[in-house]
Amino acid sequence: MTSISSILHSGYHHPTSRQWQSGNVLRKVSLMYPIFITDDPNAADEIKSLPGQKRWGINKLQGFLKPLVEKGLSSVILFGVPLKVERDSTGTLADDPNGPVIQGVKLIRKEFPDLFVACDVCLCEYTDHGHCASIARIAEVAVAYAKAGAHCVAPSDMMDGRIKAIKERLIEAGISHRVCLMSYSAKFATTCFYGPFRDAAQSAPTFGDRKCYQLPPNASGLARRAIRRDLTEGADIIMVKPGMPYLDVVKDAKLQSPDVPIAVYQVSGEYAMIWRAAEAGVFELKTAVMESMEGFLRAGATLILSYYTPLLLEWLEN
Amino acid sequence: MTSISSILHSGYHHPTSRQWQSGNVLRKVSLMYPIFITDDPNAADEIKSLPGQKRWGINKLQGFLKPLVEKGLSSVILFGVPLKVERDSTGTLADDPNGPVIQGVKLIRKEFPDLFVACDVCLCEYTDHGHCASIARIAEVAVAYAKAGAHCVAPSDMMDGRIKAIKERLIEAGISHRVCLMSYSAKFATTCFYGPFRDAAQSAPTFGDRKCYQLPPNASGLARRAIRRDLTEGADIIMVKPGMPYLDVVKDAKLQSPDVPIAVYQVSGEYAMIWRAAEAGVFELKTAVMESMEGFLRAGATLILSYYTPLLLEWLEN
Amino acid sequence: MTSISSILHSGYHHPTSRQWQSGNVLRKVSLMYPIFITDDPNAADEIKSLPGQKRWGINKLQGFLKPLVEKGLSSVILFGVPLKVERDSTGTLADDPNGPVIQGVKLIRKEFPDLFVACDVCLCEYTDHGHCASIARIAEVAVAYAKAGAHCVAPSDMMDGRIKAIKERLIEAGISHRVCLMSYSAKFATTCFYGPFRDAAQSAPTFGDRKCYQLPPNASGLARRAIRRDLTEGADIIMVKPGMPYLDVVKDAKLQSPDVPIAVYQVSGEYAMIWRAAEAGVFELKTAVMESMEGFLRAGATLILSYYTPLLLEWLEN
Amino acid sequence: MTSISSILHSGYHHPTSRQWQSGNVLRKVSLMYPIFITDDPNAADEIKSLPGQKRWGINKLQGFLKPLVEKGLSSVILFGVPLKVERDSTGTLADDPNGPVIQGVKLIRKEFPDLFVACDVCLCEYTDHGHCASIARIAEVAVAYAKAGAHCVAPSDMMDGRIKAIKERLIEAGISHRVCLMSYSAKFATTCFYGPFRDAAQSAPTFGDRKCYQLPPNASGLARRAIRRDLTEGADIIMVKPGMPYLDVVKDAKLQSPDVPIAVYQVSGEYAMIWRAAEAGVFELKTAVMESMEGFLRAGATLILSYYTPLLLEWLEN
Amino acid sequence: MTSISSILHSGYHHPTSRQWQSGNVLRKVSLMYPIFITDDPNAADEIKSLPGQKRWGINKLQGFLKPLVEKGLSSVILFGVPLKVERDSTGTLADDPNGPVIQGVKLIRKEFPDLFVACDVCLCEYTDHGHCASIARIAEVAVAYAKAGAHCVAPSDMMDGRIKAIKERLIEAGISHRVCLMSYSAKFATTCFYGPFRDAAQSAPTFGDRKCYQLPPNASGLARRAIRRDLTEGADIIMVKPGMPYLDVVKDAKLQSPDVPIAVYQVSGEYAMIWRAAEAGVFELKTAVMESMEGFLRAGATLILSYYTPLLLEWLEN
Amino acid sequence: MTSISSILHSGYHHPTSRQWQSGNVLRKVSLMYPIFITDDPNAADEIKSLPGQKRWGINKLQGFLKPLVEKGLSSVILFGVPLKVERDSTGTLADDPNGPVIQGVKLIRKEFPDLFVACDVCLCEYTDHGHCASIARIAEVAVAYAKAGAHCVAPSDMMDGRIKAIKERLIEAGISHRVCLMSYSAKFATTCFYGPFRDAAQSAPTFGDRKCYQLPPNASGLARRAIRRDLTEGADIIMVKPGMPYLDVVKDAKLQSPDVPIAVYQVSGEYAMIWRAAEAGVFELKTAVMESMEGFLRAGATLILSYYTPLLLEWLEN
Ligand SMILES: [Zn+2]
Ligand SMILES: [Zn+2]
Ligand SMILES: [Zn+2]
Ligand SMILES: [Zn+2]
Ligand SMILES: [Zn+2]
Ligand SMILES: [Zn+2]
Repeated sequence: MTSISSILHSGYHHPTSRQWQSGNVLRKVSLMYPIFITDDPNAADEIKSLPGQKRWGINKLQGFLKPLVEKGLSSVILFGVPLKVERDSTGTLADDPNGPVIQGVKLIRKEFPDLFVACDVCLCEYTDHGHCASIARIAEVAVAYAKAGAHCVAPSDMMDGRIKAIKERLIEAGISHRVCLMSYSAKFATTCFYGPFRDAAQSAPTFGDRKCYQLPPNASGLARRAIRRDLTEGADIIMVKPGMPYLDVVKDAKLQSPDVPIAVYQVSGEYAMIWRAAEAGVFELKTAVMESMEGFLRAGATLILSYYTPLLLEWLEN
Repeated sequence: MTSISSILHSGYHHPTSRQWQSGNVLRKVSLMYPIFITDDPNAADEIKSLPGQKRWGINKLQGFLKPLVEKGLSSVILFGVPLKVERDSTGTLADDPNGPVIQGVKLIRKEFPDLFVACDVCLCEYTDHGHCASIARIAEVAVAYAKAGAHCVAPSDMMDGRIKAIKERLIEAGISHRVCLMSYSAKFATTCFYGPFRDAAQSAPTFGDRKCYQLPPNASGLARRAIRRDLTEGADIIMVKPGMPYLDVVKDAKLQSPDVPIAVYQVSGEYAMIWRAAEAGVFELKTAVMESMEGFLRAGATLILSYYTPLLLEWLEN
Repeated sequence: MTSISSILHSGYHHPTSRQWQSGNVLRKVSLMYPIFITDDPNAADEIKSLPGQKRWGINKLQGFLKPLVEKGLSSVILFGVPLKVERDSTGTLADDPNGPVIQGVKLIRKEFPDLFVACDVCLCEYTDHGHCASIARIAEVAVAYAKAGAHCVAPSDMMDGRIKAIKERLIEAGISHRVCLMSYSAKFATTCFYGPFRDAAQSAPTFGDRKCYQLPPNASGLARRAIRRDLTEGADIIMVKPGMPYLDVVKDAKLQSPDVPIAVYQVSGEYAMIWRAAEAGVFELKTAVMESMEGFLRAGATLILSYYTPLLLEWLEN
Repeated sequence: MTSISSILHSGYHHPTSRQWQSGNVLRKVSLMYPIFITDDPNAADEIKSLPGQKRWGINKLQGFLKPLVEKGLSSVILFGVPLKVERDSTGTLADDPNGPVIQGVKLIRKEFPDLFVACDVCLCEYTDHGHCASIARIAEVAVAYAKAGAHCVAPSDMMDGRIKAIKERLIEAGISHRVCLMSYSAKFATTCFYGPFRDAAQSAPTFGDRKCYQLPPNASGLARRAIRRDLTEGADIIMVKPGMPYLDVVKDAKLQSPDVPIAVYQVSGEYAMIWRAAEAGVFELKTAVMESMEGFLRAGATLILSYYTPLLLEWLEN
Repeated sequence: MTSISSILHSGYHHPTSRQWQSGNVLRKVSLMYPIFITDDPNAADEIKSLPGQKRWGINKLQGFLKPLVEKGLSSVILFGVPLKVERDSTGTLADDPNGPVIQGVKLIRKEFPDLFVACDVCLCEYTDHGHCASIARIAEVAVAYAKAGAHCVAPSDMMDGRIKAIKERLIEAGISHRVCLMSYSAKFATTCFYGPFRDAAQSAPTFGDRKCYQLPPNASGLARRAIRRDLTEGADIIMVKPGMPYLDVVKDAKLQSPDVPIAVYQVSGEYAMIWRAAEAGVFELKTAVMESMEGFLRAGATLILSYYTPLLLEWLEN
Repeated sequence: MTSISSILHSGYHHPTSRQWQSGNVLRKVSLMYPIFITDDPNAADEIKSLPGQKRWGINKLQGFLKPLVEKGLSSVILFGVPLKVERDSTGTLADDPNGPVIQGVKLIRKEFPDLFVACDVCLCEYTDHGHCASIARIAEVAVAYAKAGAHCVAPSDMMDGRIKAIKERLIEAGISHRVCLMSYSAKFATTCFYGPFRDAAQSAPTFGDRKCYQLPPNASGLARRAIRRDLTEGADIIMVKPGMPYLDVVKDAKLQSPDVPIAVYQVSGEYAMIWRAAEAGVFELKTAVMESMEGFLRAGATLILSYYTPLLLEWLEN
């Protein structure tokens, strides 16, 4: 088997990811849009705590994405939100060929061939215990998403060893050179910035980010070790999450890892905080969002996951 | 078998070994409280856009500070807010012995001898053109504040050469060894986070931070050069401002300048943003504020200027 | 006029600003006390070349430790000194359940539940050839100590691969998350500072540190590589040994490895050198020992192994 | 199978490849010998606390140095010890053309034309108050030594601005290009390692290093700032003092200042400590001294000031 | 007055102080001579595009090397050039005991026992497809060369994982401690500097460096990753190739890898470029070659592979 | 007077220089074309050793530049070549309003208003002794060029203190904010790469670069100190010269000075070496030149001075 540390191509196989290897100006290509896909095929449900965002069913996806792609949307990341399915101990439905994520990937690849598609990989929503099962199971699901056409898989849990496990399975499947592995390496256990996400995913309190092995907010040393570990284990992109409250960690990630793209996730709580403060008149929305983007780039981020992507595509137009 | 490199817990399982991991910790001495002093001696005016903060008159200062000092307040920074005085081209009233800042310094030094007193030095509020006049005039005012008893002077403008000008005047006055010079070295021209401050200072749109030579938000190179310059010109403390949206710059400042304390100013817009988002239910106030403090320390700050100081002194009590 | 760049005092004139300068401070939790446990249950034998230190039997251990724990002793490291046992090729008696180390660990865990207990792991004293046998055997002994209750195991040999071997065995035993692995990563083959230790361990000239793969005194490059290797293989704490004569290596270790605690061993020869020089009137004992401690902290050490621990606990009291 | 990362030997198995690994090596040119010159022309007085060292009169100097130069001595540093002269407020006799230092420099330049001669510059011994007077006076004396033929002047006080003052006077005198300025940049106020020196200099307790502005032992930040300042002010060589107890500072100095030679002073207390410990049987003298030298080189020193120089010249012979 | 910071000479005016400045110096041991060995035993064929270089047969080798060894040649690297053999898919003849490389190694080890012998390991010349087959096959050939007596094996392909594969085979063979593994870690796909080498190796256009996985010229990030990877996989020496056009990469390699020797290959195109430019009168040959050597050392190289070695041995004589 | 270290704007006043603050891809804006202007108004003289380059008279300048500007030429640097004038001790004619440089600047500013114009400042060609006179005189000439309209002045001598002298004069003249100061900080005394330039400048052997204080080829430490000094003294751009043979120094300059643009001068000897080697068939010209450009960018250069600029503008077109 090819050694994990030997594979360099997966980080720049796609024209879009290749562009992330260079530069530092906010371009449309710097943005990745997080999308919630649910198992109700006709859903277009407002998410109250994430104003302006919806959970989408498979039948609505094309209509929703088309105008965005026309405005220059170049990448998305899909989060599966199972509302109807039966949960079990291994999260069987996570990689169900008829589940929303795999259906979504296939549809997008067919309808929007130039769009870069990433899939969040997390089993918490699909298991009855609300945990991410095992790293073997995570790897299995990641490979299923990749085989369905995902350009990138992004395990959002923090279980030790999951990057290595996924990479090994991708190598075995012979697709390691074309699948980009984005690691949530520095994902912090913020107790306040993940609330709206849980609302979006309709998760019970026990579900979601809480259960996974997130880092304590002051643990910059552990974050650095996690980043180095994930690079060693085969990560192609390193993610820091949340964004603005952890800008110093983005900087740190860039210093630790100058040779791979750094992604930053402007999480639901940040999105809502800026939105609500603008509503309350603290500042103007566009100004504050644009300044947050400048901060991400200044700190060293190459790639920004943001719910503001549709607005940003418009603002970048002019 | 779990991979060796994946195991992080063994290093901090026991309470004793956990202490060997510990970094910088939030203490009461880490906080500096910004106070607005006005020329109406009996003022205690609410500042609408800074909920919970007031403009204080000299007669109300002791009563306001006493309970805070008892709770462990160890340092303050004074901002003069002239509402009645006539402005002129040199800002004559900035160092008027009967003006609010000099009166405030003297009162605090007499009533609270252990309290560390810093003075913001800025002439924009006192000049008819709303600019900071000249570096010579700034240095003059700084020395007047220092002679009145200030332990620290902090020029908040960004004019080239003002740190050197002040230091030279302090040397000439024979007090350079006892007066700490805190430089707003990396003060960014954010267009959205200074609004409530302007409200607090009752400044017209032309007044305030806008007119001084602030840095463009993406100018991390210029910020590094400004920090090095200010150290060369005699700064004892380096400040970064705003805070959370520029956490990466705090990190950068610490790396550039490991041998002096780094201060960070959680500015009015950040204060209001967190406050309003908590009001709107995005998160709980205390949790969000504490996480912002952890971020400052993690990024490398030694000293935090925050309007949340009174609340933090209470939270740190328990 | 004094030159601006010459003035350092202004940054630390006030007690509050002085605290903003403070770095790492010597605390009781920073000290780990090395204790020799022998297989004569009632021993309390003076060690001539280590003035003030003794070899202790299991029956004397509690009486000896009680007053130290009351003074704030928070961690110890145990060295087994077999005087009566028959040596064999695999060092069978090193992990004999009735041997002094395992008995000592159990007694301490029972009597002093808050005390952090580390065990030196070395087979040289137990083998008839005076070598450390194999890394497999070292790992076996380390696991036995950990199962007996040791919070930390510290292999003092330098054989290639022993950190990895121990970590793998700890993982297999399911206790890797609670056992701290301290590596003698940068242990130098000083020909003059280990003499009294050999006396304490009653070892023949062929025995002891000499046989293990220590580093040549000028090999800072190999030390750096050894530190990085041991981190990769699962070390939780990195140790440098000896201390004062290798302070630059402590500094180097901190730079190589900012994210784990650095331990330093003030070895027997250093202890005796300072003691004898003080006796001869070169300097006062307390002053010299305290300055050596300041050096360890300044160089970056978190944890100090020192025979002066009992005296230091007293000195720190006042 | 041995782990790949464990194997270090393959890189230096052959004598040729071993040379590719080589670092800094102790050579005779690395040593500078400190010599006490007194104003009794025929003195050859034993210094009790510095066993083996003497105070020399001008008439004995040539006879004393000749065998050392023949053994390869390449540089000395002269310390003036006035025993008979009247002290005054400006230390008039420090640069008396008939004083021991200036006489010593002239004699050495004439008799040993290839020997590099440095002069310690300190007025404490010559003033009635035991302080170093002013930086102007220090500069005056330094220039006098340089004009008398010294290749190097080394101000041992720590007064702010003395490097700049000396350099400016050397420039004015037109000899700045040929006079090397060695700064005691990182001279620590150790309370225990300077005792024998005071004995050698026959100084009263108020005299000597104590009065000058030495750094507190834990002040690595101030040491770094002092090094950078002295480089800016014109230092050609940076000295760290004491040596072994501050090896980490030597390392730090090398990192701060990779582009100038780093000198280290193995001070009187270190000399005596090793000597007395060897006498007491802790270790063998030669072994301990050689290991201390290896430490200085490993930490980054280029130049070592040591009272062991005569012994080292012999040991290096074989 | 000249500015203080402008004066650099004072630090190196005296011959002794000049030695304190000295860095890495070109010595004969710094040079490794690349030699082409062909399967025509009596060959001494001029290589037109590499003026002054020849392809040697085994019978001519001793006569050719003897005068060079007498002049101080201390290491060579052998390149096999099969002209007569039948190529097949696995490059069977690369490690034929009667092939030119293995015969050459044996002869040199016997006739010149102190000469360090390295072997380039590449199968492209021996395979019918002109590729390097597999890493398993590369490792097999490397071990065969090592067993024949090579002190060093140097795989010149860039296939992922070949350093690890070779090291593992050397460990299995029990010779890993005596065989130095030199990795062409940063070998760039220059399209213009490898031409004459292909001529020397009599390779068809499809053959040679082109087919191996070389790095694109601007890929400094990939080069850094490759260096770190190869160190992790067991490389003892890191090579950069070509030399002068990639001097910044040599610097980078030294910074990435301060603890192992850095080799640089002054490739055929550089050799020819300097030679032809000297012929055309742009500069004098010796001056330009010596300046290129100074550049390699200044950038951080320890070891230089150069066709100019015979000339350099002469020039270094005087 | 504004302090030298305070001025940041001069580095980014012109739209072209502002672009040098970002990015790292070879663009037309990355190139600066060196042009020789002579005092024969109608000259268009071939320079034999610089094939393809000419000395231009003022009357031919517009015709020569027009097609280049149309192809995207964005900056030039002018070298005055006085052939007829009388030389004197102060180089009077260097800033003669009717001399070729000042006439050239004015013409270009008038005819090509978007073209960025730099002037080399060197008096060697204008003085009868062939030296650069004094730094005061250099500063005088630099200011004259700036007043004539030059956007950038670039003193090519290496005299200590000339950057500070020029900057002070520019400040006095009130034009320091609009004139970019490019320092030949790391200009090496290569004995072989400056030959064709001397031919171009028609200088006698005693004239030219030789006389100025260039750095010895192995002096990377001095180069780093020179770069830091020049930044301190007000340089806006740091130049390294020559280019390819000093690529490691370009890298070093970038690391020393990450916050200002780094320029590299592909000098006459490099130009000729590549040209002649291409003629001799070593490689193809375009390939070799493009690879040299990639090297400059990879090493960290922002700006490249090259005689290949006209060819590169063409090659970049396609
Ligand atoms: Zn999960
Ligand atoms: Zn202002
Ligand atoms: Zn052992
Ligand atoms: Zn003194
Ligand atoms: Zn090959
Ligand atoms: Zn010149």
